[in-house]
Formats: sequence, structure tokens, C-alpha cells
Amino acid sequence: MINSLFKPLLSETDKKWKPILKAFEAAIGKDGVVRRKEELLTYECDGLTSYRQRPAVVVLPRTTEEVAAVVKICHDYQIPWVARGAGTGLSGGALPVEDCVLIVTARMKQILEIDLENQRVIVQPGVINNWVTQAVSGAGFYYAPDPSSQIICSIGGNVAENSGGVHCLKYGVTSNHVLGLKLVIPDGSIVDVGGMIPEMPGYDLTGLFVGSEGTLGIATEITLKILKTPEAICVLLADFTSVEAAGQAVSDIISSGIIPAGLEIMDNFCINAVEDVVATNCYPRDAEAILLIELDGLQVEVAANKERVAKICRKNGARDITSANDPETRLKLWKGRKAAFAAAGNISPNYFVQDGVIPRTQLAKVLQQINELGEQYGYRIANVFHAGDGNLHPLILYDNSIVGAWEEVEKLGGEILKLCVECGGSLSGEHGIGSDKNCYMPYMFNETDLETMQWVRQIFNPDNLANPGKVFPTPRTCGEAANAKLEQFKEIDLY
Amino acid sequence: MINSLFKPLLSETDKKWKPILKAFEAAIGKDGVVRRKEELLTYECDGLTSYRQRPAVVVLPRTTEEVAAVVKICHDYQIPWVARGAGTGLSGGALPVEDCVLIVTARMKQILEIDLENQRVIVQPGVINNWVTQAVSGAGFYYAPDPSSQIICSIGGNVAENSGGVHCLKYGVTSNHVLGLKLVIPDGSIVDVGGMIPEMPGYDLTGLFVGSEGTLGIATEITLKILKTPEAICVLLADFTSVEAAGQAVSDIISSGIIPAGLEIMDNFCINAVEDVVATNCYPRDAEAILLIELDGLQVEVAANKERVAKICRKNGARDITSANDPETRLKLWKGRKAAFAAAGNISPNYFVQDGVIPRTQLAKVLQQINELGEQYGYRIANVFHAGDGNLHPLILYDNSIVGAWEEVEKLGGEILKLCVECGGSLSGEHGIGSDKNCYMPYMFNETDLETMQWVRQIFNPDNLANPGKVFPTPRTCGEAANAKLEQFKEIDLY
Repeated sequence: MINSLFKPLLSETDKKWKPILKAFEAAIGKDGVVRRKEELLTYECDGLTSYRQRPAVVVLPRTTEEVAAVVKICHDYQIPWVARGAGTGLSGGALPVEDCVLIVTARMKQILEIDLENQRVIVQPGVINNWVTQAVSGAGFYYAPDPSSQIICSIGGNVAENSGGVHCLKYGVTSNHVLGLKLVIPDGSIVDVGGMIPEMPGYDLTGLFVGSEGTLGIATEITLKILKTPEAICVLLADFTSVEAAGQAVSDIISSGIIPAGLEIMDNFCINAVEDVVATNCYPRDAEAILLIELDGLQVEVAANKERVAKICRKNGARDITSANDPETRLKLWKGRKAAFAAAGNISPNYFVQDGVIPRTQLAKVLQQINELGEQYGYRIANVFHAGDGNLHPLILYDNSIVGAWEEVEKLGGEILKLCVECGGSLSGEHGIGSDKNCYMPYMFNETDLETMQWVRQIFNPDNLANPGKVFPTPRTCGEAANAKLEQFKEIDLY
Repeated sequence: MINSLFKPLLSETDKKWKPILKAFEAAIGKDGVVRRKEELLTYECDGLTSYRQRPAVVVLPRTTEEVAAVVKICHDYQIPWVARGAGTGLSGGALPVEDCVLIVTARMKQILEIDLENQRVIVQPGVINNWVTQAVSGAGFYYAPDPSSQIICSIGGNVAENSGGVHCLKYGVTSNHVLGLKLVIPDGSIVDVGGMIPEMPGYDLTGLFVGSEGTLGIATEITLKILKTPEAICVLLADFTSVEAAGQAVSDIISSGIIPAGLEIMDNFCINAVEDVVATNCYPRDAEAILLIELDGLQVEVAANKERVAKICRKNGARDITSANDPETRLKLWKGRKAAFAAAGNISPNYFVQDGVIPRTQLAKVLQQINELGEQYGYRIANVFHAGDGNLHPLILYDNSIVGAWEEVEKLGGEILKLCVECGGSLSGEHGIGSDKNCYMPYMFNETDLETMQWVRQIFNPDNLANPGKVFPTPRTCGEAANAKLEQFKEIDLY
């Protein structure tokens, strides 16, 4: 009964919601509609925990048709809605907005089709990233994009944020692995974009939707490309006595024409944090930086590239180079990297992961400047990131219980982004813009460029019901800290 | 003087154009405005010579600002315009429409920036595809997409049509190699999309524009990714006594996890046509099909893959396998493939190149059906195409001087596309939709899907001035033949 969800005396708000809830229940069943305050708590934030907002109601559809029905109801009542996958996103893309419907894909976890012959898999959006590889690995295939959160994050969220991961250096981010999408757009229509083969004729709406962060619609069926598992994989661990030397080794490896499957860097602070927590006993605590380099391909190719990479590392002053070919030892070498965020959580009450991109060639310089910024603001910063594609992830450690700390960290994070953009990089490599970075968009785009993107949003989402306030800067969503930073960019008007 | 371009007595049409021509001349200079009938002849068609339409005027801007000025004038006077690169397109994408302005990029041939460190090059749209590789090959780099027409086609046209080529099997089509674009959109505004690094935040408008066939605007500066020249390249030529066996070898090579840099097939008819013209003396005239397989990478990798590919070919009944490592012999093996279209022109007064995609696994079956269709219609069809990605290019040989021949060929081409779509493929692999295939779009997309694409067109191109009548089906652009074919698709309404 609807009434059991409410206090006996209906408030004005409850009156407004009554017919809407009834419509949701009719469309997807009572068990798919969550309205109790204590149950809504879980949904107040995603992985960016510093922002919180309780949704008015959570709905849990199971099929494309149910999603379409829910979105149609939102459209009819002009209620804003936000889509949410596993809620692991780091830019607040799935952060609810006030009085919104949160459409959660947790019950859309079916792998709908596996077509090994044509190397594709069709999944519902709630399917966990790692499940795709698990479903096809027995037959010698895998799904390449592998965010750190891959054992808990969902494909739908990956599509929304165009997620990356360690293996995206060689194989590209999510957009390179999505062939087609079944979408529910904000008026409740069901649209198919792309298809079963790459490079379909007509406009590339698949590419447009991947990374649109829930502002153009919600993907309800996703056709993914899967790749053949390589014949051989080798992981090298090289340790350096300076970050500059490690950065130079990264540049030299890529310049030599080798594209490793993964190429990650960790600084001394991060190495020690990780060893404290998971004790890999592989990462030398006195190293200023380590590189983790994964090579894949044919046996002979991996063996040859291993020699070349080792030589480049040694030329750049690497002290030790360990390598692992068998899965178990490889996993051991990766273990610390995979635990880096958890380790930051262990040594600090809170941490904030920034996500920016710089040209690879400027790694050492920018890392130095990031450290200087950290000292200036009085916060420790651990660095662990995808060095191969210049995708930085500085982890700023702080204590949220200290008044004003978060605001300072936000400002420091903004300074880091400014650095990235100024040296020819980007505001985001793989975590998306979401609620966290929309106010920084004018760092990268002028008014006309942003307006052009807004046109696209407006045609799909004319009433601004789908994930309002995300991605694009509006005065409302820009914090004071960010505004202050923007004043330094006098030449660009805040859009 | 404007007047010198006209007959003494101005017609109504001339009166309409007088102020427009004046405005063009003021914007880009008199030498950039072509209006004489005999000079306009060149621009009546692109590579799809069966359709012709003389433009009202041709303009030849040199810079982004000049393009913007021209487009703004068209916008102010509400004159339709069509962009044209080198005019080598095969789907009529650059076919003028009645009473239009043709914006030709022939004077926009500057390579604006070469940044080897970051592996990118910025070019104007009139730059010839091959020039990019020429400009960077000395430093050990190349530009991967290589349409057959690469020595004459322009990068702007490649961007518009999302062109492919032999090397796109391994490295992807044009959209995978464009980082950013400076665009003039149909209201005359200049917009930057994408940038200098991949995966910029916000909507992927770069991906949206690449392949939009001039309907959303015109690219005036294009930032391209360049790749490191591989250490080793090897070309194998394997000959088979049946097309089925060659097709199975293609499937087996890809299934084995090897991705050749190129994997091309030629049938017996094509082999003989080519040998008649260029006499490579490499292609056995009695072979039912040959495969040309290019492998690239490290020396050891290429050597290992060469063994594996040869083994797969032999398993599938290949008679002879020739291979070439040195550039000169490699070129010799490729020579016939590159000359295939010219050879078709030699043995037939006219030929029509169809472009469709099928799942690789159905190669042999579909080729058989194409031959049957050819017999049924009474036309010879030569097959030479990108086998690795299932991108067919049947060459239908005909004589345009025979009344009704072109109409029959068009119908036969439509039947071939129908075959492609029915077996899970696509209307176009790399030549685009243009004027030629827009009426077939409902084969692949339902009304809602097409409408969604049209929304996108309408926001960028609301007055339908940029390349009107292309890509999307309208009753006006669908020939009777195509309409008759469409009637067989009762379940899909013609949009």
C-alpha cells in the first residue's frame, strides 16, 4: 500500500508524489519503488562522498520497457531524474538532485547474448564490468576497459562516464568498445544507436552517448566488443630513485613505439601507504617511484618488448627490474597498485582523487608542481596513475572533520586541474565531469564550444530532466572556491 | 568586375546571385569565386559519376575565417551549400544540389603544425591524405587511414566520409585518428570540438562530426594522430582454388587472434583484369581467389605471425604462399590490388563500386550470392575488398551508353546492400551514404532511430542549407528502383 509509506497526515510534498508513486508501482511493481528514508540513505551519494543529496524516490526497473515507463512518467510529471549504476563514480555523476527520481539499474544484471564468433556481448547496464570477462574468458576472450573498481562498477556507469582503466593505454577507453546501445531518451522513447558492427552509417550517436554522463538518456542494452586473450602477458616492476627518471622512462618507452597494455606509476608516499596495508613486499619502500609495465601479445613479441623496456628503464637509472610471466606472480605485482585507493583510505580519514590529463612528456614537471601545491596548501598528495597516457590521479589526503578542510581540498584540486589544462591536458581522463568539475569546463572550452554541446543536450533533454546540473557549468553549480579560481582566467567568460 | 561574368541582359537568376557574388568576392577575393559555366563543369560530380548537377557558383576559400564568411553569406541569403574536398568520394557526398554554392577546399592545403613529440599533426582540409605520411615519415611516423585514393583524396573529405582503407582493419577508420576539429557550422560560427588529446570531457562532438558527410558543417582545421612506423612489415600473397577456402582462411586468421595490418581478397575475375592492365606477374591467373595479408610490428612478432598465417592458409588449401619483407617487393605484391579499380575501368566502359559490410564469417556465402545476383541481372561483378573487416566492394561492370543500364545496375547494387543488411552487416563500410544510399537507410534504421539523427542535424543545420538531401532518406531522393526494393521490406516504413 502506498499509504504505508507515508505519515498518516500527508504533507504537500507527499501529495505531489502520491500519483507519481502510484504510476511507478503500476509500471514496475511495488518492490521496485523505494521511498523509505532509511532505505534512501544508500543512494545519497556515489563514490564522490563529499556531496550528498537524498533522492525523493528510488526506482529499480528490470527491463528496457520498465525504464521507458519510468522515464515517461517523469516526463509527464516533469520530475527530474538521475540514473545510477553501482554508484562507484568519482565525479558525482550519479549524485541525486533535489526532489528527483533516482533510476537504479541494480536489477538489470543480465548478460543477454554472447556471440563469440563475432566477438560481441550484449548486456544490461547493471552488469558488473568484471562479469563480462568472466563470462567469456573460458573461451579465450576478455573485455578490455578495466577501471580500478571493475569488480563492483557497472557497465552502464562505465558507458555514462566513458570509463578508462589500466588497459586503456593500449586498447582505448569504453567508447572504443561499445558497438551499439538501446537507449531510453528523456521523453520515454526507446532508440537504438550503433549496432552489431563498428562504424555504422549515419551520425555516430553511440559515440555521442558514451560519456554523456546520463544527460541524454539511459542505456538499457549495451553491445560490447570483446577481444582475444593475448598469448602471453608479462608484468615488469622497475624502481627509480627519482620521479623525473621514472617519468622520462615512460616517455622513452612510448616514443620507442612500444605500447604497453598498461603503464602505471606510483610515488614513494603511495608505495609506503600500499606496503603498510597489503604488504606486497615487492615495492621497495625507498624507491622514489616505481613503474608497473604490462606487456601483452605473442610470446616472442612480449619477450622482445620486455628486453627493450628493461633496457630503457635501466638507461633511465632504474635500480631493480622484476618481472612476472605467470598469472600468480603478475597478480602479486599488481596487488599494490589495485589497493592504492584503499591504502589512502587507511592512512588518512578522507581522501579526494583528482583526475586530470597532461601530455606524457611533462610528467616529471607537473608531478613536481603538484607536490609544491600540496606543500603550499598543507596537504599530503599521493600519486598513483596511468602514466602511459598522462592520466594523473593525485590522491589528496585530508580530514573531513576539520572545518574548512574539504573547501581547501576542492580548491587545491582545482589548482591541479588548472595545471593540467595549462600544459595542454584535460580536466578529466576517465572519471567524468559530473557534479564535481562542471564549473571548470570553461578552463577548456569557450562559450561557443560549450553552447554547441548544450544544443545537443537540449534536443535530447529539452526539459532538462535527465541529470540536471551535471557536466555543464551553471552559476548554481559552481562553488565559491571554483568561482574564485575562474577569476584568474579573465579571458574566458564563465558560461 | 561582376558584370563581366554575366550576359549583358541579367536574367532573374542572375539578379538573385548578383549581391551574393559581390559578397563572396568581398569576403575571399575575386579569384576565389568561380562562376563561368565551362569552369563549373569540373564540379558537376564527385567520384560517383552517374549523378551530375552543376553548382550555381564555386568558392575557394583559403582560411577558416574565409570559410566562415562564405557560410555566413549563404546563411544570410538562405542559399544551400555543399562542401567538396578532392571530389574523389564514391557516394555522391560532394554532389552539388540545384542552385547551390559549392565550397571547395582546394586552396586549403597547408600542414599547419607537426608535433612529433605528442604524435599529432594539424592540417587544413584540402591537404591530400598521403601528404601527412610524407611529412612525418622521415621521422619514423605515418598516418594510418589509407583509402585507395590516398594519393589524391583530401583529409577534409576523409573526415566527412569517415574514410577507411587497407590499414583500417588493425588501426581503425578516420574517426579513430581525429583528435579535434575546428569547424564552421551552418550559421557561420566557428566552433572547436575535441582538442589535442584523446577523450576530452563533454560530449564527443568530434566523433559526431566525423562521418556526418558535410551535413553539420565544414572542418577547416583537423588535428590528426600519427603512429610510429612499425619495425617490420611483411606482405603475404596466398592463392586459393575456391573463394570459400579463401574466406575461411580470413575467418581463421582473425579467430586465431592475429590482426593483420591489412587483409584483402581478390577474386579470379579481378585477378585477370588486374594482370591484363598492370601485369604484376605475381597473381596466378588460375586462382579462384587470392589473399593479400600485411603483417606489421616487431621483427620477431612479424616473423612469428607470418608462420601462423601461412599455416592457416595452407590448412585451408592455399596452393602457393609468396611473401615479401623489403619495401620494393611488398609494393609489387600490392600493385595489383591498388590498380583494381583502374583495371575495372579498362575492361568495361563503366563500373559501379558498391560498399557494404557483412560479418566476416559469412564471406563465402555472400560472395556466392553476389555472383548469383550478377548472373540474374546479366552483369559481371569483380570482387576486391577488405576481407578482414568484411567490407565488400563488388565492382559491377556496365556500359552507360546502353539505355536503362545504369538503372539496372543501381537496382542490382541495392540488392547487394539488402543482402549485406540481412546477414547482419551494413549499408556502407567506408564510402558513406551521400546521395547514393540515403534511400536505403530504412534497411538499417527504424523511423525513431532516423528521427533521432535528424534532430542532431536540425540543431546544427536548422535551415537544411548544409548538404541538403544527403545521408537521410526523403521521398525526393529515393529513385523508383530503390522504392521498389523497399517495398520488399514491408515491416519497415519508409521514413
